[in-house]
This record gives sequence, C-alpha cells and structure tokens, in this order.
Amino acid sequence: MKFKLEASDKFSKARAGEIVTDHGTIQTPIFMPVGTAGSVKAVHQRELKNDIEAQIILGNTYHLYLRPGLDVLEKAGGLHKFNGWDKPILTDSGGYQVYSLTEVRKIKEEGVTFRSHIDGSKHLFTPEYAMDIQRIIGADIIMAFDECTPYPCEYGYARRSVDMTHRWLKRCCERFDSTDPKYDYSQTLFPIVQGSVYKDLRIKSAEFIASMNREGNAIGGLSVGEPAEEMYAMTEVVCNILPGDKPRYLMGVGTPANILENIALGVDMFDCVMPTRNARNGMLFTKNGIINIKNEKWKDDFSAIEEDSDLFADREYSKAYLRHLIHSKEILGAQIATLHNLHFYLWLVTEARQQIIAGSFYDWKNKMVVKLSQRL
Amino acid sequence: MKFKLEASDKFSKARAGEIVTDHGTIQTPIFMPVGTAGSVKAVHQRELKNDIEAQIILGNTYHLYLRPGLDVLEKAGGLHKFNGWDKPILTDSGGYQVYSLTEVRKIKEEGVTFRSHIDGSKHLFTPEYAMDIQRIIGADIIMAFDECTPYPCEYGYARRSVDMTHRWLKRCCERFDSTDPKYDYSQTLFPIVQGSVYKDLRIKSAEFIASMNREGNAIGGLSVGEPAEEMYAMTEVVCNILPGDKPRYLMGVGTPANILENIALGVDMFDCVMPTRNARNGMLFTKNGIINIKNEKWKDDFSAIEEDSDLFADREYSKAYLRHLIHSKEILGAQIATLHNLHFYLWLVTEARQQIIAGSFYDWKNKMVVKLSQRL
Ligand SMILES: [Zn+2]
Ligand SMILES: [Zn+2]
Repeated sequence: MKFKLEASDKFSKARAGEIVTDHGTIQTPIFMPVGTAGSVKAVHQRELKNDIEAQIILGNTYHLYLRPGLDVLEKAGGLHKFNGWDKPILTDSGGYQVYSLTEVRKIKEEGVTFRSHIDGSKHLFTPEYAMDIQRIIGADIIMAFDECTPYPCEYGYARRSVDMTHRWLKRCCERFDSTDPKYDYSQTLFPIVQGSVYKDLRIKSAEFIASMNREGNAIGGLSVGEPAEEMYAMTEVVCNILPGDKPRYLMGVGTPANILENIALGVDMFDCVMPTRNARNGMLFTKNGIINIKNEKWKDDFSAIEEDSDLFADREYSKAYLRHLIHSKEILGAQIATLHNLHFYLWLVTEARQQIIAGSFYDWKNKMVVKLSQRL
Repeated sequence: MKFKLEASDKFSKARAGEIVTDHGTIQTPIFMPVGTAGSVKAVHQRELKNDIEAQIILGNTYHLYLRPGLDVLEKAGGLHKFNGWDKPILTDSGGYQVYSLTEVRKIKEEGVTFRSHIDGSKHLFTPEYAMDIQRIIGADIIMAFDECTPYPCEYGYARRSVDMTHRWLKRCCERFDSTDPKYDYSQTLFPIVQGSVYKDLRIKSAEFIASMNREGNAIGGLSVGEPAEEMYAMTEVVCNILPGDKPRYLMGVGTPANILENIALGVDMFDCVMPTRNARNGMLFTKNGIINIKNEKWKDDFSAIEEDSDLFADREYSKAYLRHLIHSKEILGAQIATLHNLHFYLWLVTEARQQIIAGSFYDWKNKMVVKLSQRL
C-alpha cells in the first residue's frame, strides 16, 4: 500500500490524497460502503462500481467468519473472488460485532470468547486468530483486534482496556509480520486508537499507535453514542498525533455533517451503516438535508427523487413511488433508497476532495453542515 | 389492441403471434412478470427492460387499490407514470386476491365485501367498480371481475359460481363499454372462463365467453392445486372453443413445463408468481432442471450461476456466492435469483416462439419438459 498526499487545506486540517493498493487506487477523503456479509445490502456489484462509483468496500470479519466460513472463502481464493468485487476491500477485526451482536462473551487477556448469534456455537477470537482470519478473507486493509469500549465508559475501565488493546496490537503485528498474504496481492494492517472520550487516554493511545509505524492508522470507539462535540474533540487530539503522511481512518462515522467535520480535522477514510441501514427505513440524505420519505408530504410528490442527479434511480423514480415502496415494504424500495444514499455519500466525499484541492473546502464545509442537517 | 397470428405449429395447437398496444408490441407466447404492488419484487425497472427484456408486466388491482390507493394513482396519471414502466401492463380484477388474502369476505350477487389485510378496513368490489378501478390504474389490458373457485370444488357450487361469473361479466362489459379510458391510450377488457375441473362447465363457460366477442380471452381457476393433467385437460377443451384469432391468457400458470404444455394447447399469455416468489427462497429454474441453491452441494461450487447466459448476474455471480446470500437472507440474494428466474422464463417463451416459427416446436417441447422438471 502507498499513500500520497496531494493537497492540504489552508484553513483546516483537511487533506486530499491517494491510496494505492494491488486492487486499485482510492482517492481520499473516501467513504467505504459497508458490505457486512460480503454484499452491500440491496446493491449489485455492477451498481456499486458504475452507479455509486465506490472505490473500496468494507467487510465484517465476524459475519464472514460465521457465514460463509473460512473454508469456503479460502477455497474461493478470498472475498474478492467470492463476491466478484475486484476493487479494494477493508475488513474490521471482528471485535466490534462480537461486542455488539453476541450476548454471551468473555473478554480476557488471551482474547474474546463468544457465541454465534446464528446458531449459538462457541468461538474464541484472539489477536493472532483475527490476523489469520483476515489473511484468509483476503482484505487489502486489515484491522487490528481491539476492544471497542461502549459509551459511557468509566475512566478506570477505559484505561485498562486501552492498555490491553495496545498489548493485543503488539500480538497482531507480530502475527501479521510473520505471515504471508494468502493470495497474490499484498495486505496491510492498520492499528486502532482507543481511549473512550478521555483526552489523556486518547493521547497516550495515539502516541503508542503512531510508534508502531504501520502504513495507516485508525481511530475506533467513537460514534458509539457520545455527543458529536466529544467525538470531534477526540478526533482533533488524535489527528494531531497520528503521522500526516499516512491515511487516517475514523471507524463507524457517521452522518454527512459528521463526515465533513472530521475531514476538516484530518480524517481520510470513513465507513458507516447509516446510509444503507437508514435507507431501508426510508431516510434519504441529500445536499439540502434529510428526507423521511415515509412522511405524508411525499404522498403525491411525483417529482424525481433528485432531478439533476447522475444516478439513474434518482432520475427515473419519483418520491411518491419510493414512498409507496417503502410503506409497502417492497424490496425495490430498499434498493432505490440505498443506491441514493450511497451515491450521495460518495458524491459528498468526492466533492469535499475537489473543494480541498481548489482551496475552498473550509467555507464550503461550513455552509454544507448547516444544510445537510436540515429536515426536509 | 390488435392481435396478429404469425405462425401455427403443425404438430400441436401452439401459435406465435403479436399483440399491439398503445404502450408497444408483445410477441407471443409471452410470460408476464408479476408486479404485485407496482414493482416486480427485487428488480429495477431498467433491469426488467434491458436485462430480462420483459414485454409486459402484471399489476394486482387488490394491492394497488389498497396501496398507494386510487387517488395517488389517478394524480400520477396511472400506474405507468407512477412506477416508470412505459411498456404494456395488465391488471387482474382484484377478485383472486380478495379470495386468497382476506379472511372476512362475503360473496353476493352484488359483489364481494372484504376487509383489507393491511388495516382491516371494509371494502366492496362489484363488477362495475372493478372496471372503474382498473380504468384508473390504467392497465392496457384489464380483466373481468369473476369468482375464482378453489380446488377441490363441489359441482353444484362450481355451476352456480360460473353462472354468476357470467352475469358479472355482462355487468363488466356494460360498464367498460360505457366509460372512456382515463388517460391518452386505449384499454381493452378480457373476460375469463371458469368452471373448475368440470368439462361441461368449462365448455359452457368458454362458449359464453367467446360469444362476448372481446379482443382477447382468459382462462382462470386453474393452477389452484389440481393435478397438472386436469389442468391440461381443461385448457385443451377451452382452447378448442375460444376463437383462434384472439390471444388466450392462462392465468397464474405455472412451472416451466406447465408453460410449454399449455403453449402446445394454444395458450399465448402467462403470468405466475413462481419465478419471483420461489427465487426469494433459493429455487432456480434452468434449461437443465431445477436447482435448490440452498443445498450443501453448491457450497463451494464457484462456477458461474450460468456461464453462457446473456444475463450479467448469471455470469458475474457464482453458485456458492448466491447460496451464501440466500442462506444469509441478504437482499442481494433475492435480487440475483429473481433476475435469473425471470430471465429464464422470458428466454423460455422466446425460444418457444422461435421453435414454433421454425416448425420444430413439438419435438423441442417434448424434450424440454423432461429436462425442465429434473432436480439438479
Ligand atoms: Zn442520489
Ligand atoms: Zn438465468
């Protein structure tokens, strides 16, 4: 993996760059659609590529490990071959889903024991095993195995947790560096800064993560329920420490306004289930604000979802039709709304990139965050 | 509407023809994908048009009447404008769904009283109202309001029912003929032959329906649980009576083998939820037989769903990937399997048409029905 910084904003910490992987180039800042079980829900791979113009997607290690399972993924030759997406893929380490989806779990120094939410079977994820699994899934960018603390989180717990996350990181790096890629392309490992909403813990963690000197770095444990201001405060502290010549990935963030604010603080990569999950419930993100398409007011609005969009679905379907589909729980409703939201998120980061290069990002961002949060 | 017979098979009653409507031409024999609530589930309109090459789709009056409702459909300018499908549409009369989906219903001479399966509200469908509703939905081909008898059905009930269906038909024709199309294109009304599995009732009904001299005719009340042989016997009797210079539509049929056998008996039009509904449960219809993609045997079969298909989804996704998606209840699984099945059904009727024109239909059909029914 290579990262090249192309432009830096004068009035903020925003940057435009390029990440080169063996599966192609990613222009940053970038948003990565979430493809939990090897599929971005309700979207065909050709739509991801041609209509949404996604440059990288995310897979969830926990889900892929349980289903289809490592034997199938290895026989397939990795996730790219399995799902037919031949551009870059990033996988999380599985930790976050273990903490949020499984009830019976035990976190120990060795690793995390949990029961599958599908069949109740018992499993153990260790830092080493998380590396082995992600080697097999074959992501271009793989994530360290960490503990993602909930919000709120007691200081004492957060401190002990971040220390363990650092010890786990060493084990991740040792395993990763002593193993080869499974397939014919290279993989890289990003460590993750934790520390809840405590500035001193975040500083300590960011310094430790920076000292590991990997090819990119991530910020975890945010967007878990804390106020946006606390999120921004933590991102700012951490971005000032993480090296500027490597990409910074803020995990699980967020709303369109969150994304622009964090770009302004120096973040290069984002992922979030919001555009896809909320789409299925009828929430549309647009340049002018948020639409709840289920509202009565769209019932006989036969105008296009977005008249001047370059996405076919925005032009070819009306708001009233989409409202009807979502109300009727028609699958096509989820398909249209998901296409729209992902297309919008990709537009947002692409436009942010242009504004950074043009030197106009800061003013544009300040105008946009107001508009983006409006309810239409 | 115009119907032109282009070729007739020498060894069977199969025919190739062309139906011309104000929304375009339909080449028969044809299969019509079912778009219950104004959407063929899991399929974009552009996929219907470009990938499946559907020539006409079906809408369900019962569902559309309840949601989005007549006020929205009328304001939109009809279903074509509402859902963006600008080729021909056929609507059923609403009767079948009332009988199969609603529990509280009362069938009287006047019409049928029922409660909505969505909110329990009470409604009355009469033959006249069924015409008015379909005028508003704006289908190119609208269906008479009939009683579709269940299977098995006592002779006495079937006889009384078919008589009422005939009286209702007169009322349908009177209403239809005394009203104008709602929009700027013409609509036509098809009457429906009933009579359960009783030959004498079917003959009587077919003669009555033929005497009404509409532009096309339909056969209802089959594929409701009776053995295939009984279905074919009824179709044969009825097709021998219904005029040959008008299209014949066999409602709600069926498996690929059913379709070929009924084409051989003189049927020109089909619709069925099987390719779409069964797709969502992992059943794939192919030239070589039926695949249950959920079976263990496809777990690590990384070959394309159908290597030499001209459908992108058949070539770009593997059987193992589709199996994984269906098992994981991923929406994309429903999307892929539905595209595959509809593409196959449209291929089947298009190929049947070529075989009829080439004079080779009968042998081809006899070979195909064996292959199509195999389990792979
Ligand atoms: Zn859009
Ligand atoms: Zn196919």
